[in-house]
Amino acid sequence: MNGWVGTILRVDLAAKTIKKEPLNLKDARDYVGGRGLGTKYFCDEVDPKVEPLSPENKLIFMSGPLTGTGAASAGRYEVVAKAPLTGTIGAANSGGYFGPELKYAGYDGIIFENSSDSPVYLYINDDIVEIRDANNLWGKTVNEATDMLNGECGESFKVSCIGPTGENGCLFSGIINDKHRAAGRGGLGAVMGSKKLKALAVRGTGSVNVARPEKFMDAIVDARAKLKAHPVGGAGLPAYGSNVLVNIINESGGLPVSNWRDGAYFPDAAAIGGESLAEKYLVKNKGCFGCSISCARVTRVPDGPFKSSGEGPEYEAAWAYGADCGVSDLAAICKANFLCNEYGMDPITLGSTIACAMELSEMGAIPESDIGFKLKFGDPQAIVDLTEAVGKNEGFGKILALGSYRLAEKYGHPELSMSVKKQEMPAYDARAIQGIGLEYATSNRGGCHVRGYVISPEVLGVPFKVDPLVTEGKAGLLKLFQDLTALIDSLGICLFTTFGLGLPEIASQYREAIGSNESDEEILLKGERIWNLEKHFNIAAGVEKDTLPPRLLREKLPEGAAEGRVSELYEMLSEYYELRGWDNEGVPTPDKVEALGIKL
Amino acid sequence: MNGWVGTILRVDLAAKTIKKEPLNLKDARDYVGGRGLGTKYFCDEVDPKVEPLSPENKLIFMSGPLTGTGAASAGRYEVVAKAPLTGTIGAANSGGYFGPELKYAGYDGIIFENSSDSPVYLYINDDIVEIRDANNLWGKTVNEATDMLNGECGESFKVSCIGPTGENGCLFSGIINDKHRAAGRGGLGAVMGSKKLKALAVRGTGSVNVARPEKFMDAIVDARAKLKAHPVGGAGLPAYGSNVLVNIINESGGLPVSNWRDGAYFPDAAAIGGESLAEKYLVKNKGCFGCSISCARVTRVPDGPFKSSGEGPEYEAAWAYGADCGVSDLAAICKANFLCNEYGMDPITLGSTIACAMELSEMGAIPESDIGFKLKFGDPQAIVDLTEAVGKNEGFGKILALGSYRLAEKYGHPELSMSVKKQEMPAYDARAIQGIGLEYATSNRGGCHVRGYVISPEVLGVPFKVDPLVTEGKAGLLKLFQDLTALIDSLGICLFTTFGLGLPEIASQYREAIGSNESDEEILLKGERIWNLEKHFNIAAGVEKDTLPPRLLREKLPEGAAEGRVSELYEMLSEYYELRGWDNEGVPTPDKVEALGIKL
Repeated sequence: MNGWVGTILRVDLAAKTIKKEPLNLKDARDYVGGRGLGTKYFCDEVDPKVEPLSPENKLIFMSGPLTGTGAASAGRYEVVAKAPLTGTIGAANSGGYFGPELKYAGYDGIIFENSSDSPVYLYINDDIVEIRDANNLWGKTVNEATDMLNGECGESFKVSCIGPTGENGCLFSGIINDKHRAAGRGGLGAVMGSKKLKALAVRGTGSVNVARPEKFMDAIVDARAKLKAHPVGGAGLPAYGSNVLVNIINESGGLPVSNWRDGAYFPDAAAIGGESLAEKYLVKNKGCFGCSISCARVTRVPDGPFKSSGEGPEYEAAWAYGADCGVSDLAAICKANFLCNEYGMDPITLGSTIACAMELSEMGAIPESDIGFKLKFGDPQAIVDLTEAVGKNEGFGKILALGSYRLAEKYGHPELSMSVKKQEMPAYDARAIQGIGLEYATSNRGGCHVRGYVISPEVLGVPFKVDPLVTEGKAGLLKLFQDLTALIDSLGICLFTTFGLGLPEIASQYREAIGSNESDEEILLKGERIWNLEKHFNIAAGVEKDTLPPRLLREKLPEGAAEGRVSELYEMLSEYYELRGWDNEGVPTPDKVEALGIKL
Repeated sequence: MNGWVGTILRVDLAAKTIKKEPLNLKDARDYVGGRGLGTKYFCDEVDPKVEPLSPENKLIFMSGPLTGTGAASAGRYEVVAKAPLTGTIGAANSGGYFGPELKYAGYDGIIFENSSDSPVYLYINDDIVEIRDANNLWGKTVNEATDMLNGECGESFKVSCIGPTGENGCLFSGIINDKHRAAGRGGLGAVMGSKKLKALAVRGTGSVNVARPEKFMDAIVDARAKLKAHPVGGAGLPAYGSNVLVNIINESGGLPVSNWRDGAYFPDAAAIGGESLAEKYLVKNKGCFGCSISCARVTRVPDGPFKSSGEGPEYEAAWAYGADCGVSDLAAICKANFLCNEYGMDPITLGSTIACAMELSEMGAIPESDIGFKLKFGDPQAIVDLTEAVGKNEGFGKILALGSYRLAEKYGHPELSMSVKKQEMPAYDARAIQGIGLEYATSNRGGCHVRGYVISPEVLGVPFKVDPLVTEGKAGLLKLFQDLTALIDSLGICLFTTFGLGLPEIASQYREAIGSNESDEEILLKGERIWNLEKHFNIAAGVEKDTLPPRLLREKLPEGAAEGRVSELYEMLSEYYELRGWDNEGVPTPDKVEALGIKL
């Protein structure tokens, strides 16, 4: 077996049984691995109408055929389940070292079924796989649980776990591996918590074979060289991490301020960007398995009221707690972000949910007595205190733990949740950057920037520059990015490799690893197949239509490069459906489904 | 028995039994009659969580203690049920001659329980009450059914019935008596249809006693004289009907245009107003039982593509089909309104729902194939054709029949439904007239203008003029209007009497009719009690919070007297809750409930 290692673990948490079964190689060829193959297994086995936090939901960990190989930045794995935040297919990707370790232990993936009645963790030491008691781990933070498991199992084990918020059903709790890398969005941590599965601890001593070792070496050397030579993948990201984007996006007039209420230019942007982080709080850069970019930041706030240390924040988290909450105190943002990692929460959703609460509070829609204090934009202590309240499941934190949509709905203003399909959109304003609006609206997991990152051409000029203010041509560009991203997430490599690599380099690595002679186009088609399968699941699950919050469609930007603009989503959407071969309500046609070879 | 006649009919449509039971006089004293007493019976007997179109919902017809007496404009009765459009308590008031006739037959009200399995009507000829077969009436329009019943029972019978839309479950179908008077809002016609009750035909030869005949005569003479002497109740309304308001409201900058998207000044207002109607299509004025105002209009479009005849349109219908749909062709508006009467539909909700569809269609959110043609604002043929489609339950009409909220939600934009609690707000822009916004938000049956018509002081200067653009003082004014209106709707007199009468005149008529020595304040307190009981029901039913569509809270008026303004709802809402003695989420406190003597 090449690329894939050939075995899937099937773990029944109720019956406490563990089975090893051969990888379905036909499906692996059609759906690649990671996100695609995880979704295929999921769709074949689970009713789309399943209640996400019920035992009938399954939780799938899946690596890709390049995970753990020498391909550029190939440390990724995917977690798949029906997402409690959105009700869509939930698929969240994470880096670090956990994915490669799972493959070295001999497993492409793990399918968790049913729920345990008391806390457990899964122990994997090559061939030895056990469901172990985790009563002592329950309630522990990510750092605590990881340290305890490394003490119990050994320092060489890689740990993926949930924090207390996953145990408490927080709808945006994530699954955190290697202490700081997260399968963060959609609330998959709550699915894991509902199964009483606290963690996985994995050690593997095997390896991953490739089909054509010499050609594979040529392909990865070429890819790595191109990535290093690229100004973004080789310089910008390594220098300042993803947070280098704050000033760039702000200058484009696309950095949303105060729950997107006050336009998209934040005067204090410089204070919260990657350059300031490097100057004030950076300890060192850090990379995931096999990655030359090393975009992660080890950071420390050495003193003051927000004294703390950890990793991050990424750009989207810095925006969510910063510009979106009207906060320019970087120390507070760092601390709030560290707390998210500790308690196992998605900072994009939580920061945005706090921003939404700030707007509702300022307009008088949330009684002060519900929050306990007068909540306003720009309050650094509030973002830290409310993050802690969600982490500890206390007071108003219990309401924030439902995400901004359910919060805003409770207080009579669902339209003030800046979300799509109940998941919060991140840090790029769709009024200033038209293509990203189409991406948010059509994303298969709700508001999200990594399902077709057209910011790359629209703002960064990678692989070529297009005008962010025009709608023409964006539908076709987005479709390409969505299909390519589905492929990348399924291969087990990092999306950031696209800051240097294109389809030819990515397809080459895949071909030589598994021994395929498929063309670039045939390989890209797998991405399109995956995208359509996800869409099909969402339709069967009854997910709402593709659209954007009304604010983006009708409240004009008051200043900046895109002054006076709204999102012209509907100028792009019909064309997008047409290019996808879907009907005019966005449903894949039977012809399209058949052409892609999807068996429903 | 004075004022009330002392008997309630209880009709079980499944068991086909009819019982006569004594009026609960204690409740009648506390909750007056009509809206208040109907709601009291309903709340005591029906689970607030009941499915509105299930047999377990009850349908109550209730007159008031002044209905059928010589009090000014005392021809009103109320229908009460849980409303399918809103899920709130549904209470709709109607004039004409049906209510007095019911009392002359000897009944204060009728409680319909359960559902028949085939179409029936209720025959009342004084003491003779029968459930009769109505298979021949099913599918007939209001005019047809009324004529057939008058043929079958006799010309002196007064008929209240549903049109085909009530049979088909249209969520804004009404109950129409005397062919043109409607208990119109909230979809009570669908409740009647779900019970397979097509009509009531009533003849009564009795009378209504009053306690102190001479003093009662003094009171009604005084009231009638004041009403006739008033510039609005005695001149404006008689001259041009309610549609006199089009030009007045437009000049105040408060006439919403194109689903409230294009501000609140309609350049073509003159073409659709009461003056034009009088000039072009008026046949004669018409009044209800005992009314000196005679605001109804018999109208006829003599030729052209919209040739038709009937009654109306009222101001709110002329606005809904006119300015709100961007239509300035008065003939088309008349025809659409006639069709509403014929098919038994609320023209405020249907006109607004078509306007909402126009906006969704123009922005691309509704595929053209769903509608069958390119729907745009300003198309007179479209308002007629779509009204007919709903009436006949054909094509896109089946979707429009759900009202604008469910329409807009289906197409991904619930926020573009200009509704409160899923019922469409009528013809007064809350950005230009601040108090009416608070009224819409807090109305106990969703968006509605007749639950506290503060347009009266804010625009018309009755009984005194207040500035429509300020928020100060509006909470107290509204509370007074809401309580007074609840009293008026329960007495069986017309709300329009307030264009001339105040609490002293209204309370006098009540006191002398039933023989009471209660003070004006004690009588007004009954209105407050009714308001709180309704609110309690809605909370128990799980109705959403008091708020307004986002457009009113954030999209500024582009021109007119209120240029640049939004609704400042939240500046008024807390004060309103405080004045009501409710908590800060708008829930009546136990102390308040006890003080009002409400038994829950």
